[in-house]
Amino acid sequence: MQRYFLDDKSLKNDKIAVIQGADHHHITRVMRMKLGDKLQVVIASTPYLAAITAISDLQVEVEVLERMQDGSEAGIALTLLQGLPKGEKIDLIIRQAAEIGVAEIIVFQAARSVAKIAGDKRESKLLRWRKIAKEAAELAHRTVIPEVKFADSLKAAFSLMDSEALKLVPYELQNGGLPALKEVLHRVAVPSSAAFVIGPEGGFAEEEVHLMEAAGGRLLTLGKRILRTETAGLVVASLLLYEWDQMGVN
Amino acid sequence: MQRYFLDDKSLKNDKIAVIQGADHHHITRVMRMKLGDKLQVVIASTPYLAAITAISDLQVEVEVLERMQDGSEAGIALTLLQGLPKGEKIDLIIRQAAEIGVAEIIVFQAARSVAKIAGDKRESKLLRWRKIAKEAAELAHRTVIPEVKFADSLKAAFSLMDSEALKLVPYELQNGGLPALKEVLHRVAVPSSAAFVIGPEGGFAEEEVHLMEAAGGRLLTLGKRILRTETAGLVVASLLLYEWDQMGVN
Repeated sequence: MQRYFLDDKSLKNDKIAVIQGADHHHITRVMRMKLGDKLQVVIASTPYLAAITAISDLQVEVEVLERMQDGSEAGIALTLLQGLPKGEKIDLIIRQAAEIGVAEIIVFQAARSVAKIAGDKRESKLLRWRKIAKEAAELAHRTVIPEVKFADSLKAAFSLMDSEALKLVPYELQNGGLPALKEVLHRVAVPSSAAFVIGPEGGFAEEEVHLMEAAGGRLLTLGKRILRTETAGLVVASLLLYEWDQMGVN
Repeated sequence: MQRYFLDDKSLKNDKIAVIQGADHHHITRVMRMKLGDKLQVVIASTPYLAAITAISDLQVEVEVLERMQDGSEAGIALTLLQGLPKGEKIDLIIRQAAEIGVAEIIVFQAARSVAKIAGDKRESKLLRWRKIAKEAAELAHRTVIPEVKFADSLKAAFSLMDSEALKLVPYELQNGGLPALKEVLHRVAVPSSAAFVIGPEGGFAEEEVHLMEAAGGRLLTLGKRILRTETAGLVVASLLLYEWDQMGVN
């Protein structure tokens, strides 16, 4: 069943909500729903079953029925710090990170990012990325939309996130010698939040590695098969949620 | 360093190999390599360091230097059975599955696959998918190219794979009640091969679920966040490799 995030302004009273804009389009044109059809709405991070009571060209009115069982959010807040990759890859990365269940995505201009986002393009990029995150969270039946932020550098990205988070840094040294992710996870206590940093296509610059080490980042290896930047974040997020039993199974 | 798979025909003698076609183009045009530049070649699943000794418009000649350290292949053969999804999603699925390290990908026409591949299009699709798998395996520094096959139905797909494989079936029941992946993995012995079946966008048809159960498939849940078909396979492959210590870390 389709799920939509509503903001407080959507509520006419405690039973009736009004849906407009892109969600109205999705309900009436993409899903072609009719009067009486059921859907799910999320209001203030709580999911409810709802039924359509009126449809017009501009809005859909739904009656909010019972509260649904919850438990779809991870109890450990994950932050993906993603070095800006080339082209449209960032869309896929945000979509899949939102789907698997991260709480926050900070895209940063890495020293080796080939792509650059000019200052006047940032607002429009962020709007686009937040829309992607919202739609992915709806499809995944989450109750929270992950936050998406942009930072000018890795240093700026670090200042945006929870400084207490466990900081994991997958890194591919030529000569090996770094501990495996599992080894690191079995050595630390289960944290309340964790961040993992994924470099762009060209990897991290030396000064970025020093900065992360100085900030308590734990360098580790994901193994001998080299993952591309658009694959690594999803893989790490999956492994953390699995290891810490946060896949959302009751 | 760039890696290329060579077939036996590429070897002129036990020291010199000749590279033509798409790899020649990649070396000379995309990577713009020069005489003396180093690259990696994989011959009969063994990786070697090599250096360019001659470049012409049609071929690149390399001298095969020392054998490289191995260990990039998982010791447990994973098969992804993927219900044919819509549009170009299958390209992403094959690319990421090859990258993470699966041994085999069987794309099948599922009961609820919206897309269909006509009989006369199959050869060209398979060629395209195998090219994607080869390139992804090269980039990931693997020593084996995953096999890619096509099957007309889930039943036909099952007959193509190792019948002794542990068969895992992520499935989203409305009412829950299925064991989590971790629960299933902790209940079974570590297998020598494992297959996991991912439905297309519309999920599995009832008769497909019955067929998989009858064939010993273990139904399980990946949790409360619903993963899209193009995300689920990569996530399951990552979790299996992690759980069974097959990420390729020495």
